[in-house]
Amino acid sequence: VSAAPIGVFDSGLGGLTVLHAIARRLPAESTLYFGDTARVPYGPKSPDVVRRYSLEIMRWMVGQQVKAIVVACNTSTAHALDLLRQESPVPVWGVIEPGAQAVVQVDPFHPIGVIGTAGTIRSGAYQRAIQALLPGAEIVAKACPLFVPLVEEGWFNHPATRLVAEEYLTPVRARNLRALVLGCTHYPLIKPLIQEVMGERVTLIDSAQETARAVAEGLSQSGLAAPPDGTASHRFVVSDDPERFRRVGTGFLGERIERVEVTALGTG
Amino acid sequence: VSAAPIGVFDSGLGGLTVLHAIARRLPAESTLYFGDTARVPYGPKSPDVVRRYSLEIMRWMVGQQVKAIVVACNTSTAHALDLLRQESPVPVWGVIEPGAQAVVQVDPFHPIGVIGTAGTIRSGAYQRAIQALLPGAEIVAKACPLFVPLVEEGWFNHPATRLVAEEYLTPVRARNLRALVLGCTHYPLIKPLIQEVMGERVTLIDSAQETARAVAEGLSQSGLAAPPDGTASHRFVVSDDPERFRRVGTGFLGERIERVEVTALGTG
Repeated sequence: VSAAPIGVFDSGLGGLTVLHAIARRLPAESTLYFGDTARVPYGPKSPDVVRRYSLEIMRWMVGQQVKAIVVACNTSTAHALDLLRQESPVPVWGVIEPGAQAVVQVDPFHPIGVIGTAGTIRSGAYQRAIQALLPGAEIVAKACPLFVPLVEEGWFNHPATRLVAEEYLTPVRARNLRALVLGCTHYPLIKPLIQEVMGERVTLIDSAQETARAVAEGLSQSGLAAPPDGTASHRFVVSDDPERFRRVGTGFLGERIERVEVTALGTG
Repeated sequence: VSAAPIGVFDSGLGGLTVLHAIARRLPAESTLYFGDTARVPYGPKSPDVVRRYSLEIMRWMVGQQVKAIVVACNTSTAHALDLLRQESPVPVWGVIEPGAQAVVQVDPFHPIGVIGTAGTIRSGAYQRAIQALLPGAEIVAKACPLFVPLVEEGWFNHPATRLVAEEYLTPVRARNLRALVLGCTHYPLIKPLIQEVMGERVTLIDSAQETARAVAEGLSQSGLAAPPDGTASHRFVVSDDPERFRRVGTGFLGERIERVEVTALGTG
């Protein structure tokens, strides 16, 4: 049993959907969220740079006495998870494996869909994780680069978002799949729209939810869960522009963020 | 007379529209372009961070023996131009003043429009520059955050881009203006669409074109123009992901980028 916080980090705001899922599933757990807003986005950055930034954040989190780390960023998970697991003294979870584990269970006889940012799809990380669990699986992977800016604009149900979703998803839908992984932490916010465009027969796998489930299982198995009677606290730290994080992040988290700290990490 | 290159920098690709305008107007001039692709975008970053990055790039460019510097980034111009002018041993131009100078000449009796990224509009830099030239001017400023990702997706004339443009620009159009500054280096690529949505009565001011004009005048006045018979060379340097820069940048520049160098600047 440990009352220490779970560290959750992302390049920016998106990881707050993962934090939200963790906080709902594990209300007794304290958390420390770090958003690398000075260096967001990680997607267009090279794997080496993403690894360097991720390692820097991991070390900072360990210094903050976290008991476990959740890499709530698909790019960082794709490029840096193995390295972080080697280097970290505490357990580390990424957002890709849990989604892959959930999606292969839906229906192994139809193609499996994955959508994400250009960087996530190009990295092939979901494709590899799914293949490892279900060798020979037919995978339909599609980058949807405009979803993140549309979500950040708050246009969850705007006609433009629908038009963009139709453009991206019509060829995916045509492949007659039954399960689609939302491989980006921003996408849960437009899940209803994606569901509508994909149709009722397609099960959407929300990697934020699946990651929260993996964290819950992992903490419980390793005896690291928080005492059930303690008071959970949630700390938010960013590397730049705490005001925007507070404002936009409130929508992502689904509840008001009161205080955001800034650290020099990431602006060097 | 000087055959040294003109340094042009931006947080990423957008400044290539400014480079394009300079190269067209001044075919004898050599250029050195730097895109800070490791730290793009600057818009959401705090003014202090943008100043620090801009100063670092300026010093690097001076070390590369440029004869003048063009800050082809609206955010950097808004926050760092004064500082760069103080610190630089060579002349420095930004992208804001030239656009402001052009727009106030169109029609001083109607409101003046400015569109740009959220960061540029929030900085108030165009609004101040226009007010300084035309005190009391009525200014309609509107942030259009989705234009940059739509342009980077290459959807210059897509129905979704049109829908987004209508959403952003309908209230601007309703203000009965005659002139609108495209206050973002990405926007020249969707100029025809913006013109259609705004209507024929509105003159669009392209700050890339206006900046190229200011540079041409400045070089000629200060005796720094290139010898007309020399061979111009164009060098491209980025701080990360040269391959994406080459690929997407070719669309921005309007001609093929053959070789992109990488420097560690900006990934520290």
